[in-house]
Amino acid sequence: MKLMLIGFGVVGQGLVMILHDKADDLKTRYGFSPQVVGVATGSRGILYNANGLSLQKLLGAGQAGTLAHYPDEDGLERDFVDALDLIQNRDADVLVEVSPTNIRTAMPAMQHLQEAIATGKHIVTANKGPVAIGFKALLQQAKEANVHIRYESTLMAGTPAIATGLETLAGSTIQSARGIVNGTTNYILTEMENGLTYDDALSRAQQLGYAETDPTADVEGYDAAAKVLIMLNAFFGIEASLDDIDVMGITSITPEAILAATEANERYKLIASATPQGGQVKLVRLPLNDPLAHVKGATNALTFETDLMGDVTVMGAGAGQQETGLGLLADLLAIHRIVSV
Amino acid sequence: MKLMLIGFGVVGQGLVMILHDKADDLKTRYGFSPQVVGVATGSRGILYNANGLSLQKLLGAGQAGTLAHYPDEDGLERDFVDALDLIQNRDADVLVEVSPTNIRTAMPAMQHLQEAIATGKHIVTANKGPVAIGFKALLQQAKEANVHIRYESTLMAGTPAIATGLETLAGSTIQSARGIVNGTTNYILTEMENGLTYDDALSRAQQLGYAETDPTADVEGYDAAAKVLIMLNAFFGIEASLDDIDVMGITSITPEAILAATEANERYKLIASATPQGGQVKLVRLPLNDPLAHVKGATNALTFETDLMGDVTVMGAGAGQQETGLGLLADLLAIHRIVSV
Repeated sequence: MKLMLIGFGVVGQGLVMILHDKADDLKTRYGFSPQVVGVATGSRGILYNANGLSLQKLLGAGQAGTLAHYPDEDGLERDFVDALDLIQNRDADVLVEVSPTNIRTAMPAMQHLQEAIATGKHIVTANKGPVAIGFKALLQQAKEANVHIRYESTLMAGTPAIATGLETLAGSTIQSARGIVNGTTNYILTEMENGLTYDDALSRAQQLGYAETDPTADVEGYDAAAKVLIMLNAFFGIEASLDDIDVMGITSITPEAILAATEANERYKLIASATPQGGQVKLVRLPLNDPLAHVKGATNALTFETDLMGDVTVMGAGAGQQETGLGLLADLLAIHRIVSV
Repeated sequence: MKLMLIGFGVVGQGLVMILHDKADDLKTRYGFSPQVVGVATGSRGILYNANGLSLQKLLGAGQAGTLAHYPDEDGLERDFVDALDLIQNRDADVLVEVSPTNIRTAMPAMQHLQEAIATGKHIVTANKGPVAIGFKALLQQAKEANVHIRYESTLMAGTPAIATGLETLAGSTIQSARGIVNGTTNYILTEMENGLTYDDALSRAQQLGYAETDPTADVEGYDAAAKVLIMLNAFFGIEASLDDIDVMGITSITPEAILAATEANERYKLIASATPQGGQVKLVRLPLNDPLAHVKGATNALTFETDLMGDVTVMGAGAGQQETGLGLLADLLAIHRIVSV
């Protein structure tokens, strides 16, 4: 399987690291020996080698911060106008989209994926944009071209949520998907239960790398909202935009409110939910008999309410370099299982 | 996809009920239109119709308690010596093994599966026997014959545990699988936390249909132990027998012990675990920061400890007619996804 990576930041490098470190294991356990033939970044260079790039040299270039650092070798090409040029004019079996997400326009990732389909490449994406916005048309285009699209990493990194809803629970009808899909806010809420103020909990989240310097997207609920859009698309075939859903963050929560909930045997959680009627992100007090009430720290969890299976919950890490890389890898292996038949 | 069912008790009838009730939905959502062409029971008759049996008539015969009740129709055959005769001499794409489990010998299910492979049929089984005992050779035989074997329902019914470990977490290395895989005992422990004595909790479990009239297999830990054997095979490729693993039940637990655990902020749980070093079933006190401590009633849950994803937990129903039928259906749909490519 020949892979073309669009984007080579934390997540892209994470995938290459795993492919490098697990090469023998992947070959033995799954008969899976992928090659990375192309890597495109926005402003730090583009590489292609039909014979496969060296994963080790790629990681070196990643650490150096530019693909210009990748040494010359037989068959290496560097002269491409942009990612689209690479996608349109060079072969690969799977395009791995790991460029930065734009949740309002889905660009330029959407264009990358459209061109990938047009040139017969399967798609694995960690980029939330095209799965949140404009996904229906993309899915239709892929179906007509007989191309697979997988996007496990867009919801809870490598913790299987998309595949659980669509595949391992196949046959059940999902009535709702609701859960904790943002680790940063759950970490802050957990630390506030442990006695910290909001500001101190946020600072600690930033020190640990859970929260960005500008934490707005997390604490105002917009990262969770993007995941609601993804759940609406994935589980209910519903297209919506951020403007269509009620979004609440955690910035207004006080230590007093947290304490009052604790005393009532309840826990505040930022719950993202999607149903056939739409979606929302809401800060709610959960009773302790809800499994989601016991999800602590940066952990994520999603509960599927189904017609015949009752509630099924998956719980695990929802972010992180290797965790997201593993979600991409699980998707690649799922395509490998099918195309290698 | 033509299905042949071996066994037509609660689980087999559950599957046929779902196939009947969801026929339109399965066709629309997955392009899946299976036919049941054969059904074999031990002593209540055998049916085969290459054109497909009527699901409605099958359900009627199931309710009547004998396939003799199935009315005559064009192409119907009833004269078979036994299930093996049917498997060896009639076609089907998939054999669904839902006959009663024998956890010591795996018979006669093992023979059914061997003959299914020999005649080129894929396998979906809810029968724990052949996945617990002698599975390695069976898997090898299937691999050589290019036949799929799926067995989701053997572990936690339709709650995806096998597929999570093998497929949706593919790429991660599982270091251990530990969880609550017997709903009856978890229900009893939960009711004892609510103040019931062991005997009263067991009676209530029997009234609700969670526990059998002879509850030995559940309360002595042997059902959980069978699932340990299945986990050892599935996740670590290790063959073992019941004699190889330490098995503990819940019959010795007292209300005093339950109370002491509660006062120490801990909960008694019957934990089944499998690692590359072996497996066990043990009644342990879990601290409340373990997600398994919050699994209540008849619910099951399994935590995978992995190399790069940390802990991933799946939680849901672990038994029941339609829940087990849905596990079989998810397996059938997984085969359908691959063979229909």
